[in-house]
Amino acid sequence: MGDTPRRGPSRRQLLLGGAAVGAGAAATLGAERAGLLPGTGPAADTTGVNGERIVPFHGARQAGVTSTPGAYATYVAFDLLESTDRDGMRAWLSLLSDDAARLTQGRGALADLEPELAVRPAGLTATFGLSREAVHRAGAAAPDWLRPLPAFPKIDALEDRWSGGDVVVLLHGDDPTSISHLLRMLVRDSRSFATVRWRQDGFRRAYGSDPHGTTMRNLFGQVDGTTTPRPEDAGFDAAVWAGPEAPAWLRGGTSLVLRRIAMNLETWDEVGVDGRENAIGRRLSDGAPLTGGTEHDDVDLEATDASGFTVVNPAAHVARARVEDPSSRIVRIGYNYDDPVEAGAVDTQGRPAVSNVGLLFGSWQRDVDAQYVPMQRRLAEADLLNTWTTPIGSGVWAIPPGCEEGGFVGETLFA
Amino acid sequence: MGDTPRRGPSRRQLLLGGAAVGAGAAATLGAERAGLLPGTGPAADTTGVNGERIVPFHGARQAGVTSTPGAYATYVAFDLLESTDRDGMRAWLSLLSDDAARLTQGRGALADLEPELAVRPAGLTATFGLSREAVHRAGAAAPDWLRPLPAFPKIDALEDRWSGGDVVVLLHGDDPTSISHLLRMLVRDSRSFATVRWRQDGFRRAYGSDPHGTTMRNLFGQVDGTTTPRPEDAGFDAAVWAGPEAPAWLRGGTSLVLRRIAMNLETWDEVGVDGRENAIGRRLSDGAPLTGGTEHDDVDLEATDASGFTVVNPAAHVARARVEDPSSRIVRIGYNYDDPVEAGAVDTQGRPAVSNVGLLFGSWQRDVDAQYVPMQRRLAEADLLNTWTTPIGSGVWAIPPGCEEGGFVGETLFA
Repeated sequence: MGDTPRRGPSRRQLLLGGAAVGAGAAATLGAERAGLLPGTGPAADTTGVNGERIVPFHGARQAGVTSTPGAYATYVAFDLLESTDRDGMRAWLSLLSDDAARLTQGRGALADLEPELAVRPAGLTATFGLSREAVHRAGAAAPDWLRPLPAFPKIDALEDRWSGGDVVVLLHGDDPTSISHLLRMLVRDSRSFATVRWRQDGFRRAYGSDPHGTTMRNLFGQVDGTTTPRPEDAGFDAAVWAGPEAPAWLRGGTSLVLRRIAMNLETWDEVGVDGRENAIGRRLSDGAPLTGGTEHDDVDLEATDASGFTVVNPAAHVARARVEDPSSRIVRIGYNYDDPVEAGAVDTQGRPAVSNVGLLFGSWQRDVDAQYVPMQRRLAEADLLNTWTTPIGSGVWAIPPGCEEGGFVGETLFA
Repeated sequence: MGDTPRRGPSRRQLLLGGAAVGAGAAATLGAERAGLLPGTGPAADTTGVNGERIVPFHGARQAGVTSTPGAYATYVAFDLLESTDRDGMRAWLSLLSDDAARLTQGRGALADLEPELAVRPAGLTATFGLSREAVHRAGAAAPDWLRPLPAFPKIDALEDRWSGGDVVVLLHGDDPTSISHLLRMLVRDSRSFATVRWRQDGFRRAYGSDPHGTTMRNLFGQVDGTTTPRPEDAGFDAAVWAGPEAPAWLRGGTSLVLRRIAMNLETWDEVGVDGRENAIGRRLSDGAPLTGGTEHDDVDLEATDASGFTVVNPAAHVARARVEDPSSRIVRIGYNYDDPVEAGAVDTQGRPAVSNVGLLFGSWQRDVDAQYVPMQRRLAEADLLNTWTTPIGSGVWAIPPGCEEGGFVGETLFA
C-alpha cells in the first residue's frame, strides 16, 4: 500500500519532472528554482511554502551537485559486506535509487508504512558516491584519483570513524523529517549488502532565514565559500563533470572529497577581529577582501600598505586557496556541524571541552589529483587558519552520472 | 565591540517588544504571529522570510512556553559546581538571561566576536528551568512536585546521561545557526558555575514545509499532540500557570517534564496499518479518531462495533491518555530526534542497530503530581504503544516566570 501515492502528482511535479528529463542539468536547476516562485503552482497560495518543492531525481546528472543546497545535510557511508558481489552491488544500488527516486518526489518508498512522512520533500536530494572497492566489486575499473587523499601530516588528525566508506549517500534538503525518513529507508534496504560505517549531520541557514541569499557563514562567523564556481559560471562544466579522460561509466559524473574539519572555538575566541581577518584575508562583517570592495570582488594579493607589506598576508586562507584557472577550481559545498560534546572530551588545556563543532567540507571536481590535491598541499603547508582547524575525517568517492526513469544510479558500471 | 549592534533595532522589533512588555503573554503570542504576516514589517518585502522574526524575551512569562514551537530544539542541562552558592546562582542566572535577551532579539552577546551569527534569530527562544537543588542553592523553597518522577518500572529504562540536571535551558527556533550560537554563549558563560550534563537535539517540520500548520508527526508516522490545549483554549491558564498554591517566586511560571522516549522502528516495522491504528486509536493517514470525523473531533470511547466491542481498544494510547477536565491536562511540546547509531548498539535480535530515534516528550503543567503523574501511571500500566517505546531519559524542572528588561529569569528566587 505504501507504493500507492495518497494523492496523484501535482501538475507542477509532472511539469518539473518532465522538463528535467528532457533538457538535462541546466533545465533541472531552472525548474527547481521556478518551484520557489509565487504563482507557479498549487503551493503558491501560501506565502513561502517550500515543503512541496521537488528536485527531479532523474536526469543526466545526479541531483544534489548543482542544486541549491538545502539547509540540512545528512551524510551516511556504508561498508560492503564480504558477500556483496557484482550481482549484489547491482541489486543494492538499484534498491537505493528506487528509494531515493520515490521519496525525493514526495512518494512513499516501496512497502512504506509511513508514506505521510514523505509527502513534503522540501527540496530533498540524494547523491550517491562509490569508493575504489565499490567500483571493483561491480567489476569496473576505477580512475587513478579514486583512493584516499595523500597524508597531510602537518594538519591531519584523521579518525577511522569519520573517514572512508565504500558507498556514500549525501542527503540534502530543507526539512529534517523528510531527510530522516529517506535515511531510514536507505539503511533498512542496505541490511543485506552493507553496514553503516558513519553518519554525519550538518546545517546551513534554514530556508526562509535569509532574504538575500548571502553566502553561508561557518561557526567561526566567516563568510564561507565566496569564490566557489556556480553552475552558470564559465569553466564550471570543465571543473566538475568527468569527460573522455574518465572510464566510460563515470562520464557525466564527478568526484566528491569530504573532509570533516574540527574548529576550535576556545582558541579562536582568544583572537580579536584583526587577527581573524588577517588569517582569512577578508572582513568578518561582510566577507569583502581586505583590499576593499564587496564580497564578490577579487582579492588583490599584490596590493601593499604604506609600509610596503602586502595588505593580504601571504599565508592568509584566501591567498593559499586561490586558483586562477576557473576550470581547475573545486566547487565547494559546506555544512556546519555542532554535535554534542563527547564523554571525556577535553580542550587544549585539559579542561572539559565545551563544544564539538566544525565544518563538513565537501567539494566536487572532475579530477581529485589535478584539482583538489595541489590546493590542499598549499593549504596544509601554510594557511593561518590551520591554527584553529583540524581535519579529523576524510574520504574520496566517484559520483556516477544520473539515470533516467526505470534506471538506477550506478547502472553504467554494469553496461 | 560585540556589545554594539551592527544596526539598530527595527521599528518592528521595538513595536513587538513594547507590546509584549505592556500586555503580557497573550499580546506576546499575538505579536509573534503578526511578525509572520506579509506587510507588517521590514522583512515583508521578501516572500516568507522569517529569519528576522523576533519572539520577545522580556515579559510576564518566559518565552518558549506558549510561542509556536520552532522547527528545531536544542536542550541542555547543567550540573552545578559545588562552589556555586547563592551569589553564584544569581550571577550565573543573570549572565544566562543577558545572553538570551540579546541573541533572541538579533543582537550579539556581550563580547561576542561573531555578532553576525545572531542577526537572524528566526523565532529563537530560550526557556530556563530549575531543579530542586538549584532552588535550594538559591536559598528558596521548592514545591513538592519538584523532584524526579516516581519510577515506572514496567516501562522505564532510564539512563543517567539523559536524565536530571540542575538547570535546563530549552532553545527553540527555526534556524540551527542561531540556536548553535546561543548555545555556545550559554555554555561559555557557564564555565565558572556549572558543567554540561547532557544535550539533546530535536526537530519538527521545518518552517515553510507545511502550508496547513497541521499537527506534527513523530517518526512512527503518527500525528502527535492533537489534543494538547492551546493558549486560547478554556482551561489553558489553569492547566499551565502556577498560582497562589506555589511558592511566591514561581507564580506565573510553570513546570517542565521532559522524557526521552526511544522508539523501536525495527519492531514497529513489523506491524501493519491496522495494528498501528489499533494501538493509537486514530487513523494514521490523518489522525482522525477511529470512531470517525476529523483530527480534532472527540474520540468516542464508548462507541461499539457490530460485535459489541468498543471501536477504540481500551488500551489504545488515546484511551489511556485521555483527561476530561481541561484544567487538569498537560500541554505537550514534542520534538523528534534521529541521532547517529551509537557504537556497539544492537537491536532486539542482537543485530547491529539501524536507527536511534525517538521523541523528546516535553510537557508544561501547573503541578506535576496532580496532572502529569496520574496520566503517566495510566499509560505505564497499559498503553499499547509501550510495546515499541522506551523512556530512557527523564527530568522535572520548575520554570520561573519571565522578567522585565534589566531583570533576569530566576530573580524572584532572590526577592
